[in-house]
Amino acid sequence: MNSFNLPACQVYQPEIRFVDIDAAGIVNNATYFNYFEQSRIHFFEGLVGRKWNWHEAGMVVARHEIDYRMPILFNDDIRIVTWIERVGEKSMTAAYEVLKAVEGKWVNLATAKTVMVSFNHVSGKSIAWPLQMSEPIAQFGTGRPSF
Amino acid sequence: MNSFNLPACQVYQPEIRFVDIDAAGIVNNATYFNYFEQSRIHFFEGLVGRKWNWHEAGMVVARHEIDYRMPILFNDDIRIVTWIERVGEKSMTAAYEVLKAVEGKWVNLATAKTVMVSFNHVSGKSIAWPLQMSEPIAQFGTGRPSF
Amino acid sequence: MNSFNLPACQVYQPEIRFVDIDAAGIVNNATYFNYFEQSRIHFFEGLVGRKWNWHEAGMVVARHEIDYRMPILFNDDIRIVTWIERVGEKSMTAAYEVLKAVEGKWVNLATAKTVMVSFNHVSGKSIAWPLQMSEPIAQFGTGRPSF
Amino acid sequence: MNSFNLPACQVYQPEIRFVDIDAAGIVNNATYFNYFEQSRIHFFEGLVGRKWNWHEAGMVVARHEIDYRMPILFNDDIRIVTWIERVGEKSMTAAYEVLKAVEGKWVNLATAKTVMVSFNHVSGKSIAWPLQMSEPIAQFGTGRPSF
Repeated sequence: MNSFNLPACQVYQPEIRFVDIDAAGIVNNATYFNYFEQSRIHFFEGLVGRKWNWHEAGMVVARHEIDYRMPILFNDDIRIVTWIERVGEKSMTAAYEVLKAVEGKWVNLATAKTVMVSFNHVSGKSIAWPLQMSEPIAQFGTGRPSF
Repeated sequence: MNSFNLPACQVYQPEIRFVDIDAAGIVNNATYFNYFEQSRIHFFEGLVGRKWNWHEAGMVVARHEIDYRMPILFNDDIRIVTWIERVGEKSMTAAYEVLKAVEGKWVNLATAKTVMVSFNHVSGKSIAWPLQMSEPIAQFGTGRPSF
Repeated sequence: MNSFNLPACQVYQPEIRFVDIDAAGIVNNATYFNYFEQSRIHFFEGLVGRKWNWHEAGMVVARHEIDYRMPILFNDDIRIVTWIERVGEKSMTAAYEVLKAVEGKWVNLATAKTVMVSFNHVSGKSIAWPLQMSEPIAQFGTGRPSF
Repeated sequence: MNSFNLPACQVYQPEIRFVDIDAAGIVNNATYFNYFEQSRIHFFEGLVGRKWNWHEAGMVVARHEIDYRMPILFNDDIRIVTWIERVGEKSMTAAYEVLKAVEGKWVNLATAKTVMVSFNHVSGKSIAWPLQMSEPIAQFGTGRPSF
């Protein structure tokens, strides 16, 4: 648990590296997607209950969308809340809110979504989600959590 | 001009760095947004006709969306075609196609859009596009070029 | 304190991001210097006792050297121990050991040094270390700690 | 040939990406090593005469050292001159100068060296340089070229 009253796997605290800040003095817009990548790994590892072998039964990113509201600064205290919005037979959509601690409240800096496709790296084709992935997600539930 | 029969500013050839390749053996999905950033700079420098002072009258990225079709590999010969899809009073939308040379043809690997907002870094507020930006764009024209 | 029995500021745990892994399946050799950058920030913030204003009285990196012994993998449990090896009037040398937890022992993966020069960003010249920097370092002490 | 009167493989022009610039307004000190990585690839591809298969008979970076003299800015016109300083049975040392065009002259911004070890990724051991690597280097010659 955490200050969001959410399972630990849903709340990721990115380390804002000095190098993440670009010439505009803010976290570069591309770097958010690396934070989301870490959020997803953190989420799925918590969900599936072990270090996930990404080389085996994998997922590929098919789509991203993001709306930026306010920038992330170097010393910001950031959390990313992640959830699964929708699960299809061969794809699913993850969603994220990027939140910043401002005077004891969490302010939304950005909202984003990622569509992932289940992928067998041996056959090179999209496949139905393996049970070890789909069952924990079904049990966990989908949709934006209250926080 | 180039093999696309487009103005030089619309065709950007990213250098695929070894470090751009991630553990999955492909260009990391976040890195595309750095390529698009370079594409936009290349486009606007060509359009405005000089090195643009990004610190002065700036633009901030308000939204990205991208659809990935096929991955970029290390030795791929890539071009990114950029155009302006829409210009509003204080915002505009850039669009991109990521293309790969395959047996003499350009194959679409990804399509993306970026919404940018005109921003005065001194006042910290969105403003109408300065003429030195809006006029060259109006003259250049908007919409996906034929290629 | 920590398992090294060292002050917290001397022990930094980098987050190994998926994107840090390159096409060779290991943390890219350049990324170590971003980890060291974070180590230094962590060290100096602990030493000086507050968020350091890097824009004000700054330091610039004048030299790096690093010896790589074994690679860092994605799921490795890494610590970086940092110390100040030498302080001159206008420069100092930081040193680092990169350590990996292997069966309950910390194994050395890499050793590195950074020479930093005290720099006034207003005058654009190197200057003597400000007291708020040199005094805490003198009090903390220099040289490789026992661990 | 080029303005340095050197073989093309020895002169690499890095693209300075916007994201390469860090919060200090200069190319981050770690990013130089990505530029050097590209320089080495450019050099060895020119030397060996084909796209090198880095997964096959590889080389691993064993040591880096770099002296920074002046920073790289976003719009700088940069070249990196690379040469092989020394070849041993199982290792070799590459050296680089980072040069910036200033009023028609090339000014040295940084000097660096990389020790690489010949490595068989199947056996996981260092091996003698394969002939397809050592012969072109012997023919090309070692040592800093005049420029």
